[in-house]
Amino acid sequence: MSIPIAAPEPLAQGTLRVTPIGGLGEIGRNMTTFEFDGKILIVDCGVLFPEEHQPGVDLILPDFEPIKSRLDDIVGVVLTHGHEDHIGAVPYLLRLKNDIPLIGSGLTLALVEAKLKEHRIKPYTLTVVEGQKEQVGPFDLEFIAVNHSIPDAMAVAIRTPAGLALATGDFKMDQLPLDGRITDLRSFARLGEEGVDLFLVDSTNADVPGFTPTERSIGPVLDQVIAKSQRRVIVASFSSHVHRVQQVIDAAHANGRRVAFLGRSMVRNMTIAQQLGYLTVPDNTLIDYKKARDLPDDKIVYMSTGSQGEPMAVLSRMANLDHAIEPGEGDTIILASSLIPGNENAVYRVIDGLTRLGANVVHKANARVHVSGHAAAGELLYCYNILKPKNVLPVHGEYRHLMANAKLAQDTGIPEERTIIGGNGTIIDLRDGEATIAGQLDIGFVYVDGSTVGGVTDADLKDRRILGEEGFVSIIVVVDSSTGRIISGPEIHARGVAEDDSVFDDVTPKIIAALKEAAGNGVRDNHALSQIIRRTIGRWVNQKLRRRPMIVPLVIEA
Amino acid sequence: MSIPIAAPEPLAQGTLRVTPIGGLGEIGRNMTTFEFDGKILIVDCGVLFPEEHQPGVDLILPDFEPIKSRLDDIVGVVLTHGHEDHIGAVPYLLRLKNDIPLIGSGLTLALVEAKLKEHRIKPYTLTVVEGQKEQVGPFDLEFIAVNHSIPDAMAVAIRTPAGLALATGDFKMDQLPLDGRITDLRSFARLGEEGVDLFLVDSTNADVPGFTPTERSIGPVLDQVIAKSQRRVIVASFSSHVHRVQQVIDAAHANGRRVAFLGRSMVRNMTIAQQLGYLTVPDNTLIDYKKARDLPDDKIVYMSTGSQGEPMAVLSRMANLDHAIEPGEGDTIILASSLIPGNENAVYRVIDGLTRLGANVVHKANARVHVSGHAAAGELLYCYNILKPKNVLPVHGEYRHLMANAKLAQDTGIPEERTIIGGNGTIIDLRDGEATIAGQLDIGFVYVDGSTVGGVTDADLKDRRILGEEGFVSIIVVVDSSTGRIISGPEIHARGVAEDDSVFDDVTPKIIAALKEAAGNGVRDNHALSQIIRRTIGRWVNQKLRRRPMIVPLVIEA
Repeated sequence: MSIPIAAPEPLAQGTLRVTPIGGLGEIGRNMTTFEFDGKILIVDCGVLFPEEHQPGVDLILPDFEPIKSRLDDIVGVVLTHGHEDHIGAVPYLLRLKNDIPLIGSGLTLALVEAKLKEHRIKPYTLTVVEGQKEQVGPFDLEFIAVNHSIPDAMAVAIRTPAGLALATGDFKMDQLPLDGRITDLRSFARLGEEGVDLFLVDSTNADVPGFTPTERSIGPVLDQVIAKSQRRVIVASFSSHVHRVQQVIDAAHANGRRVAFLGRSMVRNMTIAQQLGYLTVPDNTLIDYKKARDLPDDKIVYMSTGSQGEPMAVLSRMANLDHAIEPGEGDTIILASSLIPGNENAVYRVIDGLTRLGANVVHKANARVHVSGHAAAGELLYCYNILKPKNVLPVHGEYRHLMANAKLAQDTGIPEERTIIGGNGTIIDLRDGEATIAGQLDIGFVYVDGSTVGGVTDADLKDRRILGEEGFVSIIVVVDSSTGRIISGPEIHARGVAEDDSVFDDVTPKIIAALKEAAGNGVRDNHALSQIIRRTIGRWVNQKLRRRPMIVPLVIEA
Repeated sequence: MSIPIAAPEPLAQGTLRVTPIGGLGEIGRNMTTFEFDGKILIVDCGVLFPEEHQPGVDLILPDFEPIKSRLDDIVGVVLTHGHEDHIGAVPYLLRLKNDIPLIGSGLTLALVEAKLKEHRIKPYTLTVVEGQKEQVGPFDLEFIAVNHSIPDAMAVAIRTPAGLALATGDFKMDQLPLDGRITDLRSFARLGEEGVDLFLVDSTNADVPGFTPTERSIGPVLDQVIAKSQRRVIVASFSSHVHRVQQVIDAAHANGRRVAFLGRSMVRNMTIAQQLGYLTVPDNTLIDYKKARDLPDDKIVYMSTGSQGEPMAVLSRMANLDHAIEPGEGDTIILASSLIPGNENAVYRVIDGLTRLGANVVHKANARVHVSGHAAAGELLYCYNILKPKNVLPVHGEYRHLMANAKLAQDTGIPEERTIIGGNGTIIDLRDGEATIAGQLDIGFVYVDGSTVGGVTDADLKDRRILGEEGFVSIIVVVDSSTGRIISGPEIHARGVAEDDSVFDDVTPKIIAALKEAAGNGVRDNHALSQIIRRTIGRWVNQKLRRRPMIVPLVIEA
């Protein structure tokens, strides 16, 4: 199912227009706009990480095109929590207009602020909220605590005269969270009694049956593994997972070990979390990693980044003996993290490298050292039943996740026509408790590559894929512009094709013959001559080598 | 641990020299040589499939370098079973010498023969064996039935005066296999009593605790899913998995449906399996897929390739509506297969595409529709205990699998110094029941790309990785060879770098200035001028775009 591109009717008075800009049909770059009475509220503004068919790309941004001409109408950006897929694109949005107000919880905005400083964006406007109401333009906002794999996450209820919308952000329903801050089902119940007209709900784990185990179940496993270890322990996890790090610190402390943070983002985030009181560290526990090397091996736990096998992160560099800490015989490495699809080979290469160095590697596949941050099917059913929303828009997920989530809604009695499967750019109008699809925007991918934002296009990525699979052959000929006579060349150079350019010796006379024939026929046009070269060598390479490298002919007139 | 390259001593009389050429530290291209008394026996000769850091490569072969000068000494190649990672490189070996005798079971050699015909290799020499003894040169061979995810798999016992070696090939210990052909533990017991001096054992699942469930457990699930389906059913699996296909045929037949094979390798392999009696098809069950389209939707099961998301295979093409069979609302797709690490994104893209078309996708993550073909830790313990081998060489696996397997051996009481962790090219000499590492060969990767074997090198792959991540910028300048004056250019062309070459307008004057300065200083050498261009534009691109494309300068004299 894909909705054909169609411009919507102008927004009628009294209607709320909801447009997911990113995060539908993908895991990442979450962003939704809410428009009422000429004003726009944005919920989340995250990045998407590229897959292997988007080579060389650093980040993918939401397509800001639909709001670029409306920047002055934006009354605020609500950030539900501090993960990259919800806040990562904020600096790029603020490059367009730096005084758009940012609204979120304390930890979320502290992480956003660190990001704005790195991007040298100022001034900026922050509004810290926590479980309170806030009027932002025509939007009456209420913030509701939810539990997730980062502290201080919130859902947001958005009231306008058109009705009540509730966006969960990312969440799960751990009933025994480390910080005691559960997803506030009482508020969900209250909102349900008031009447939720549109429920935007996290779909990431909608196809996972049952319930996500409690984060607390990991603590004893960490404790046991650390207790058994005779030498150094290195734990890798996400640098924003404050509760996971808390459990590592607690287990280290219980076993008489100190903790050193490794990796720029781990150090930065944990400093922020500690300053704001989200991370509790017993006295005399933290130690700088440079000093940690003087401790006996059984007195230290390193807490590091790199759990996804990222080649430049600490753990990969350790596995390659390219880091000051060199793992060895008897060390224990714990990957206390998920394995994000697409990263398997990279992660297994790191595990193999560490094993080869003599380390014992503990990971998700051989011990309970990770639980997910997202509500599984069983938890989502609780939400549907307590809220009984009139309309449901599954968000945050690939298509199969959105479909699975819609089916759960239908299982609780919500009619199929009230569960909306949309994509990025699907425009949903809410009025009198009725949500209808009012149009479909054309939403693209905006690639960040180096310092370039949007300068690298899908056509460039297609070129990169061809170059990366097949390499290229360039053929340069200098011709006399009046006679068409070859002055110099053809010079043939290839990269990524063959060990030695002499493989092309056979085709050179063919190119010369083809160009002479063309010259004899009076062909002088550079483009036409280039095409003749392309065809001649292209056909030869396909037949002789059975390959299809990029052919780059260049005819220079002199 | 890696063993430094070291040439071995010449092979002493009465010693068996065992050299794994491929399959250690990797999953694939399994191949081991056994040398005794000047003669060489090869066990298996498979291919490895490339990972994402080997872009554009079709296949990776074992490095035949160590045997290239010894072709006349090879007395035979034993093929333990018909999977690509054990037979796929046979045609490439036979290109070196086509009359090397091939020894294997009926199905294995039938699959090899199909391959040799495709490669137009003839004549060739086949010896079909099954649970019998065979003298091949100085090697006294005994073939032992093992159970695996393809019928007719065998282990091979190799007796020489130096001792008894047993190579399992790939195997598991399903106690209720579909064809009743269990791994022959009685023979293992007998060999154990005789005394196994060296045990070469499949490590693929050594790090998986417990026991692989029986293939038989999948049948009822398939039956249930097909019974519930109101419309078409499409099952994807490996084209060599005869028993999986058998169960699909049985479930289809039980539900009054006919079966059509889709995909070239599926059709070919199942034709061979049926002809040789490995696949039993009830009368009037198979139907050509073109005719199947005339059947009612609830009367057909398509059995297809493409379970790993391979872009050119049937299932991917169906998901892209690029196949004669177009899945739609209410159809059921079953992925009755494993998910090989590295293929996750491709497979999930196919699942998403099919879901989007309205199909219900059943796969490993939501139903028991796959079991592994390899012995898990529990099964391996049985083998060690019944064989009590003197020396163990874990094979077929990444380093972590080899390590896990060695630890299992040690758990059953085999001393650590008798469990050998080797790599490709590790030379192991067996004499008087003692196995020792005698040397280490330098083993490379041999890439097949198009019609080229070995012509694409690691340097080419490095170029491809740079090109694929960053693209390239080529700069062509035509200069007067005597004065150094620029006659034409610089012409700058880039691919995969930026939407528009005009981004380089700023750097053109810098290049001209640099070349003029060089000309003024009397620099005439093409290479030196190229380096000046490379530095000038390279520095500019790094600073301006924060990227590192391949820079390809070319100075032409005219």
